Amino acid sequence: MFSKQTYIQRREELKKKFNSGILLFLGNDETGMNYADNTYHYRQDSTFLYYFGINAPGFYAIIDLDSGDEIIFGDDFTIDSIVWMGDMPSVASLAEKVGISKTETSDALKKRLAKADNVMFLPPYRPEHQIKLFDFLGIHPSEQAQKASIPFIMAVAEQRNVKTHEEIDEIEKAVNTTVLMHRTAMRYAKPGMTEAQVAAKVAQIALESGGQLSFPIIATINGQTLHNHFHGNTIREGQLFLLDAGAETPMGYAGDMSSTFPVSKQFTPEQRDIYEVCLKAHNAAIDMLKPGLHFRDAHLLAARIIFDGLKSFGFTKGNTDDAVANGAHALFFPCGLGHLMGLDVHDMENLGEQWVGYGGEPKSTQFGLKSLRLGRELKPGYVLTVEPGIYFIPQLIDLWQKNGTNKEFLNFDKINTYRDFSGLRNEEDILITQDGHRILGEPLAKSVADVEAERKYAFE
Amino acid sequence: MFSKQTYIQRREELKKKFNSGILLFLGNDETGMNYADNTYHYRQDSTFLYYFGINAPGFYAIIDLDSGDEIIFGDDFTIDSIVWMGDMPSVASLAEKVGISKTETSDALKKRLAKADNVMFLPPYRPEHQIKLFDFLGIHPSEQAQKASIPFIMAVAEQRNVKTHEEIDEIEKAVNTTVLMHRTAMRYAKPGMTEAQVAAKVAQIALESGGQLSFPIIATINGQTLHNHFHGNTIREGQLFLLDAGAETPMGYAGDMSSTFPVSKQFTPEQRDIYEVCLKAHNAAIDMLKPGLHFRDAHLLAARIIFDGLKSFGFTKGNTDDAVANGAHALFFPCGLGHLMGLDVHDMENLGEQWVGYGGEPKSTQFGLKSLRLGRELKPGYVLTVEPGIYFIPQLIDLWQKNGTNKEFLNFDKINTYRDFSGLRNEEDILITQDGHRILGEPLAKSVADVEAERKYAFE
Repeated sequence: MFSKQTYIQRREELKKKFNSGILLFLGNDETGMNYADNTYHYRQDSTFLYYFGINAPGFYAIIDLDSGDEIIFGDDFTIDSIVWMGDMPSVASLAEKVGISKTETSDALKKRLAKADNVMFLPPYRPEHQIKLFDFLGIHPSEQAQKASIPFIMAVAEQRNVKTHEEIDEIEKAVNTTVLMHRTAMRYAKPGMTEAQVAAKVAQIALESGGQLSFPIIATINGQTLHNHFHGNTIREGQLFLLDAGAETPMGYAGDMSSTFPVSKQFTPEQRDIYEVCLKAHNAAIDMLKPGLHFRDAHLLAARIIFDGLKSFGFTKGNTDDAVANGAHALFFPCGLGHLMGLDVHDMENLGEQWVGYGGEPKSTQFGLKSLRLGRELKPGYVLTVEPGIYFIPQLIDLWQKNGTNKEFLNFDKINTYRDFSGLRNEEDILITQDGHRILGEPLAKSVADVEAERKYAFE
Repeated sequence: MFSKQTYIQRREELKKKFNSGILLFLGNDETGMNYADNTYHYRQDSTFLYYFGINAPGFYAIIDLDSGDEIIFGDDFTIDSIVWMGDMPSVASLAEKVGISKTETSDALKKRLAKADNVMFLPPYRPEHQIKLFDFLGIHPSEQAQKASIPFIMAVAEQRNVKTHEEIDEIEKAVNTTVLMHRTAMRYAKPGMTEAQVAAKVAQIALESGGQLSFPIIATINGQTLHNHFHGNTIREGQLFLLDAGAETPMGYAGDMSSTFPVSKQFTPEQRDIYEVCLKAHNAAIDMLKPGLHFRDAHLLAARIIFDGLKSFGFTKGNTDDAVANGAHALFFPCGLGHLMGLDVHDMENLGEQWVGYGGEPKSTQFGLKSLRLGRELKPGYVLTVEPGIYFIPQLIDLWQKNGTNKEFLNFDKINTYRDFSGLRNEEDILITQDGHRILGEPLAKSVADVEAERKYAFE
């Protein structure tokens, strides 16, 4: 937990954006896996954590902009609970740690809200929030996203987007654990293991730090499937292994990195060629990051480098600028260059990308560019990922070939010889500084030579 | 997944208990941690798994007892999803694997239920189920538990309580992974580590098997706090370490064991004395398990052995039968001897202990006995845990001493010298056979000598 003053200042800054009404903050409850009391690990709502710091279930808060009241709602433990759960701090003592002197029981919240006529809330992403909003405000779950307060969303997004020094320190802790997760995997994965064995080792590193994973691990020989959480394959010589994993600190800040390495000691020549095209795009995109840059331009630079590099091996053809303008690179790079990161690994994704990553501007609808989560000018204090990738996705190749999509820029004969290549990416976490950028965390091997040096340990 | 015939037979057996109406089965959805798409690992509802086998989100099913129709509701993937998620089997092909030929889209379910007048459902434990039931049937979340169908609950409980050979094989796989988790911890934990380091190592074993944890790990030097998921302490020579952890197989079957070992190479004399009292109760309770035994009698035997053993060291006094009848043992053993186990680690806890563990009989209200989750006659095919413990809970000691609770059976002066002892238990998983019982899984060290032999590895 940060100092009391931090939370007081965060709320003061938020309040300056409003004149009247009630800001409602719903903390997260526990979630039962297969019955109510068999819970997943607890995860507090990040906005609640940001303004109220309490990392435990059963809490709600309001800021009454008319009276100036800041109130935390929650229930003290009974003696019965203390026997089973140990001594627990009182609601009042938890509130005091974040500079709040008014607390009420959870029952009192509904009564307060019933009397109010301008309650502003954020879009709910947990069904328990939907039930609460229905109960408190009488708004049906299907209408809640639409009735969320855009000024509230925008104020939270603008404030949380700019990280303070103490937040950056916390994010860097997460990134350093994340680096260790990836380095360990590079040294641990051996032909004949299952993907699950590698994922389990990576999870161990995150958990032994006292935190959690910041998102479900991707640990796969099928890197071309972008959202792949299957870990059932045995890994074999000659394959590429893609790991996308990150740690979350006990305070809730995220790291998020990707690495790709050969299951064998070394990359094949074909793997090395594609890997180096992607790494060139990765490094060039990072190099240009600074305040005032529009992140879409870094994305498009990476797209051009990928298209050009693939052209040198005969996969693509034609004018690169025209190809990228037409989205032809998106056959190989159908997703975005990166995203904001903080208390959430995709920071504030629940508030809506249009507000958080685009400052309210509409997103492109073009295939590829529409998946770019961040499309605005960068400011000092932003923390973001850079993660271009090159993927050979058989289903997408077949679809484009059938439809003739971008056929003037693509050599499908050559591309089809790489249908089984899988996919690869590197990903690092970057802070935008006053005059440029800084890659967060200890360095992780990313050149071919450095990755192959790490792989030697696995075969010792 | 089991054979098609297994699922067909399970549904046939269930249908025999009813004449008319619709049985509704709600599968579990994904749960977002801090935004919708950052999900916890997926866990299907166990009753849905039992009758319909599909281990994926977004599915519902009904059995129409009047028409005989069995229908699975779900939506096929779009080409967009396939690009991101890989090839996915169709709803029809998933349904076919469990012997169901009728499938409809998820939208169709609401329309079907709107026309029905006797829809039976199970108590919801996920808020997403509450929203669905409200949407489908117009029953407010606060009234749903009460309006759940008791005949449906009883029919599912009686059927799932008796495990088949193929289920027992699956449970034994989970138990064997669980044994490995505990043996590894005994050989791994060293003074100076954090509890989180030991928990992380234990989690690695569960995850590398391709499954999950069956419940959140308890790995603590404060075993006296029964529901303790804090892992932040550094472990020190002289302390006791209590591990309660289990694996879940990819099909969803659970193991659940507890072990207690010294952080040092050996138990102190005081630790050994208390440990051996508890282990004697544990072994004696297991020895008596067989069909026809009322599990409450095994619980009470364990309580008497604990009370007697503690009397030999001067913690308790007076007539043992009277003491146990008055619940005096519950100062040290405030919980139950064990619980049923299967697809859920506390099997079907969501259906209600009164129905699952008590066959509809009311539970005792006495402190201690009221926490016994299983209180019925045992039948062949039941799988259950045995896990007596001895805990020195300072808050409970203070409460009882202040109130004079059971003071005629307790030597508080002696007890108070053990306020910092913490707590201990052993737990194993037992199958009730035709004529007795079988402890499931490979043997795990539980005698003092065997545990100390495992601990030697940690100091090599």
